[in-house]
Amino acid sequence: MKRKVGIIGAGHVGSDVAFSLVTQGICDEIILIDKVEAKAESEALELRDMSSMTHFHTTVTANDWEGLKEADVIIMAVGPETLLRQDRMEELVETSRSVAEIVPKILATGFEGIFVNITNPCDVITMLIQKITGFDHSRVFGTGTSLDTARMRRVVGEALHINPKSVEGYVLGEHGESQFVAWSTVKIGGVHITDYKTETTLDLPALKDTVRFGGWNILTGKGWTSFGIATATANIVGALLSDAKQVFPLAVFSEQTNTYIGQPAIIGANGVIDILEPTLTKEEQANFSNSAAVIRKAFDLL
Amino acid sequence: MKRKVGIIGAGHVGSDVAFSLVTQGICDEIILIDKVEAKAESEALELRDMSSMTHFHTTVTANDWEGLKEADVIIMAVGPETLLRQDRMEELVETSRSVAEIVPKILATGFEGIFVNITNPCDVITMLIQKITGFDHSRVFGTGTSLDTARMRRVVGEALHINPKSVEGYVLGEHGESQFVAWSTVKIGGVHITDYKTETTLDLPALKDTVRFGGWNILTGKGWTSFGIATATANIVGALLSDAKQVFPLAVFSEQTNTYIGQPAIIGANGVIDILEPTLTKEEQANFSNSAAVIRKAFDLL
Amino acid sequence: MKRKVGIIGAGHVGSDVAFSLVTQGICDEIILIDKVEAKAESEALELRDMSSMTHFHTTVTANDWEGLKEADVIIMAVGPETLLRQDRMEELVETSRSVAEIVPKILATGFEGIFVNITNPCDVITMLIQKITGFDHSRVFGTGTSLDTARMRRVVGEALHINPKSVEGYVLGEHGESQFVAWSTVKIGGVHITDYKTETTLDLPALKDTVRFGGWNILTGKGWTSFGIATATANIVGALLSDAKQVFPLAVFSEQTNTYIGQPAIIGANGVIDILEPTLTKEEQANFSNSAAVIRKAFDLL
Amino acid sequence: MKRKVGIIGAGHVGSDVAFSLVTQGICDEIILIDKVEAKAESEALELRDMSSMTHFHTTVTANDWEGLKEADVIIMAVGPETLLRQDRMEELVETSRSVAEIVPKILATGFEGIFVNITNPCDVITMLIQKITGFDHSRVFGTGTSLDTARMRRVVGEALHINPKSVEGYVLGEHGESQFVAWSTVKIGGVHITDYKTETTLDLPALKDTVRFGGWNILTGKGWTSFGIATATANIVGALLSDAKQVFPLAVFSEQTNTYIGQPAIIGANGVIDILEPTLTKEEQANFSNSAAVIRKAFDLL
Repeated sequence: MKRKVGIIGAGHVGSDVAFSLVTQGICDEIILIDKVEAKAESEALELRDMSSMTHFHTTVTANDWEGLKEADVIIMAVGPETLLRQDRMEELVETSRSVAEIVPKILATGFEGIFVNITNPCDVITMLIQKITGFDHSRVFGTGTSLDTARMRRVVGEALHINPKSVEGYVLGEHGESQFVAWSTVKIGGVHITDYKTETTLDLPALKDTVRFGGWNILTGKGWTSFGIATATANIVGALLSDAKQVFPLAVFSEQTNTYIGQPAIIGANGVIDILEPTLTKEEQANFSNSAAVIRKAFDLL
Repeated sequence: MKRKVGIIGAGHVGSDVAFSLVTQGICDEIILIDKVEAKAESEALELRDMSSMTHFHTTVTANDWEGLKEADVIIMAVGPETLLRQDRMEELVETSRSVAEIVPKILATGFEGIFVNITNPCDVITMLIQKITGFDHSRVFGTGTSLDTARMRRVVGEALHINPKSVEGYVLGEHGESQFVAWSTVKIGGVHITDYKTETTLDLPALKDTVRFGGWNILTGKGWTSFGIATATANIVGALLSDAKQVFPLAVFSEQTNTYIGQPAIIGANGVIDILEPTLTKEEQANFSNSAAVIRKAFDLL
Repeated sequence: MKRKVGIIGAGHVGSDVAFSLVTQGICDEIILIDKVEAKAESEALELRDMSSMTHFHTTVTANDWEGLKEADVIIMAVGPETLLRQDRMEELVETSRSVAEIVPKILATGFEGIFVNITNPCDVITMLIQKITGFDHSRVFGTGTSLDTARMRRVVGEALHINPKSVEGYVLGEHGESQFVAWSTVKIGGVHITDYKTETTLDLPALKDTVRFGGWNILTGKGWTSFGIATATANIVGALLSDAKQVFPLAVFSEQTNTYIGQPAIIGANGVIDILEPTLTKEEQANFSNSAAVIRKAFDLL
Repeated sequence: MKRKVGIIGAGHVGSDVAFSLVTQGICDEIILIDKVEAKAESEALELRDMSSMTHFHTTVTANDWEGLKEADVIIMAVGPETLLRQDRMEELVETSRSVAEIVPKILATGFEGIFVNITNPCDVITMLIQKITGFDHSRVFGTGTSLDTARMRRVVGEALHINPKSVEGYVLGEHGESQFVAWSTVKIGGVHITDYKTETTLDLPALKDTVRFGGWNILTGKGWTSFGIATATANIVGALLSDAKQVFPLAVFSEQTNTYIGQPAIIGANGVIDILEPTLTKEEQANFSNSAAVIRKAFDLL
């Protein structure tokens, strides 16, 4: 009955996922784990300090590996040592090593739930987790382009002076350089973005760059990014736990390209139920294939 | 600073709008008004009984006409005496008479906010309120096809086993018989409904009928409908009060057809900011014109 | 994993409990049951119509008796035919008959969860349910004086111009005529009510009467009461499902008086964990004993 | 109509206050200001990236000093350069200098709202802000012992295996070394903590130390504290904006001791409405006087 979530990594991202879950009462129990145990314990203590001040109740414990056995969902939020690094390959070497150490420890507990991976490079690491676990593809997915999509909606919303909630459409592909805005899917209140009447001409390539560099701008000012991805992840966790059968742009396994890659997918209590394939323009299709190749190549390098 | 909402009519709809607003903490003050003063007082008392048990705080008073002067929004939820009636013209005569009595009393208070009309027939009554008030069209709108759109999303979601939150698209036209589902706008995760891969063939006309008769089925079992429209209205009020610039399918004034009619519109603190006109098929365009004519004709009969 | 709630009775109370649960996303699945099946179906349809407009997801079905087997909690919200009736004994005969019919049907499904009873007379009916089920007392309790306590907090808050959330203390005893405000427990920000500095003298007996007749006033104006009790019940359900170990004034079994009666109790995933016995004045103790005798006598009449 | 909050300081605390406000939809507009402008801009960008994923809408801008003129509330969350420092006097010199620079700039905008101070040492800095502004004491207060009280409720809750929400009572005095738990105010479900039946004997002095060192433990593991205070502040802001007249333990001006100090106070739209003075034991009274003297002495050193 109790909705239990494990979070591996109590850095900015993992802790802010927990903060969002507790603030919204999205789950009943959180196990926060970090290799620096004192870090996880401190974060858990902070989250428990909230407990008389929230509307709902969430129990938070730290470093309880055994407890992961009963978790419905495990969030992989293992970060690299260095955040302000542009070389994704270096990051890959480091985080893949951490993940390869941690995942077997999780499996050893008897965990039978769903893996949601945030650790970057997201698509490659998600694929790695699936390989190590041998779990069905439906039970392992990554946050993929969910944050990039949220950023696109924000950027389009700000350009058109409308609420990002009213912007439909997706960023597809790698959660990284080769991603692209699938403009053919972008609509506002049923009106395609290219038909949208505005006083100023929309410069789609410029908007795309704003989306793409959004994370980098935040990184340089703040030193890390966490609120956006934490909110996306909290919503994903909510959808899993309530068996919501809801669509999110996620890093899911695409048979066609034989790789994990950002695409709209339907998720419920058992993980990924279906993958949606919006009709893309030829250019978008090429972008998608290219992005898949980039991810696959990085994975093969491991 | 305080977000103040007036609700005219403490029947099922008006009271459930208030219940939803208080439960979610969407506004800070509600004035509930009913011609049967004891009814409004009872409802206000019930809503105040909630106040130690909610997370946020909302003050609720009853029958304070003077207080409407400072309201940001007034919800018109005046119902007819008889609910289970299929003759909309009879209903129109009755509710238009009530509205014609009430609106001048509201104007006399010096109210300078936004009118959101739920009273049926929604499109015609909204137009009537605008005429009586002489307010700019941006400051008077109706809930229009917001509930019908929610129903369409539910019906499509149930047919495809996906969450209605993930169904995009709109029901357009009259909040009544002549409405139609604009199938050309209906997408799931960026995939058009006619391209959506399902095991069973989707029967769009049958789905449309399920949408259309959804209200009637509820009416016959329950005697009235309120939860759906109350939730839609609470969201609309939230968008107005927070200046959200968000899209809802509302009864707004269409210059082209010279009538109020259900269309996607962007709303913010000052009411309607813009109306969106999705590209429709020829058949849908004809349906829209037809629906506009039906509304206009009913209005002209007044 | 999924949090499942059965609600027996789709009248005003049962339906508004469901409305509050869905609005707040407190559970993942609701089964709504009514002897008038079309009524439960209509309400379920309305609640599902909300599903594209809420932040969280709740599945709602109607009349699925089999499904109760997996429910974590069952809410008994069976109402009498006549609402505006002051003779509690007549009500008892009618509702006890309904409950005696329904409970065995629930047991036949294999239900192993917690019973939360709202049906009046609450204390007696709760005791009856426990007897029929043979469940441990911890697994059967009633909403008891939770609404009366909320009313007391509202009445005190209004008298002192402070928020009812900041009023501590309890109404104890029967959810009925013999209840009493345990003034010795009533504090505001740590200050006992009799020490609270106000410009006007507080008339505690008058306040007590306002609490006591609060329900009746609502009943005469509105015809029924539901928002207050629905909100109390939604909070109770939230506490059960999240194993919150939180205190509510509930109809729980008191060994000392050998009856169910309204008292502060701690509830968690397995129901009642502990009963709290605030130190009462002699007069309050006498009131409590008297109230217990009233409940016991009514039960023995069955 | 729009609820506008200024936050000065986009460090961990200021940013997490904003994160909590946006996640819960507690206000409509946030202005985030930091002397490192790029920091505030990054945080604002992150918070705006959330906007398609939350249920409500909040606008977030950065470094708009002029905009503070219209703010209802300004949160002072200016931090020291060094967090892991035990010498409060050094911290005072540093933060008082920052505050003395910033407050006149805020006054120059024409700001007419409420100051809520988090900056440490909280009581002294709150007093300093009041002096500089010349505002009525009701319009300047600090978060005081709100976090300490939340910690006490957590610590007591964990010791008794009950929900911290069900623990009443307060930590009083300085938000610092000289604070104390007013055990005479601590109750669970109306039962005084010393009467509470438990299997183990409660060691109140040990519990008090756990409360007192709670922050330090978090600080050493995490490097800073923010979730607890952010949640407390979000609730305080919600109470101000909705005119909730709710009780919080805050740093408010005590006439009797001629200093700002942590006490239960009622706050509403115009700030502090009233201060509550629970009946204390002689020892607690002495602790309170002592704590007031400590604060006053630190202030006089400035």
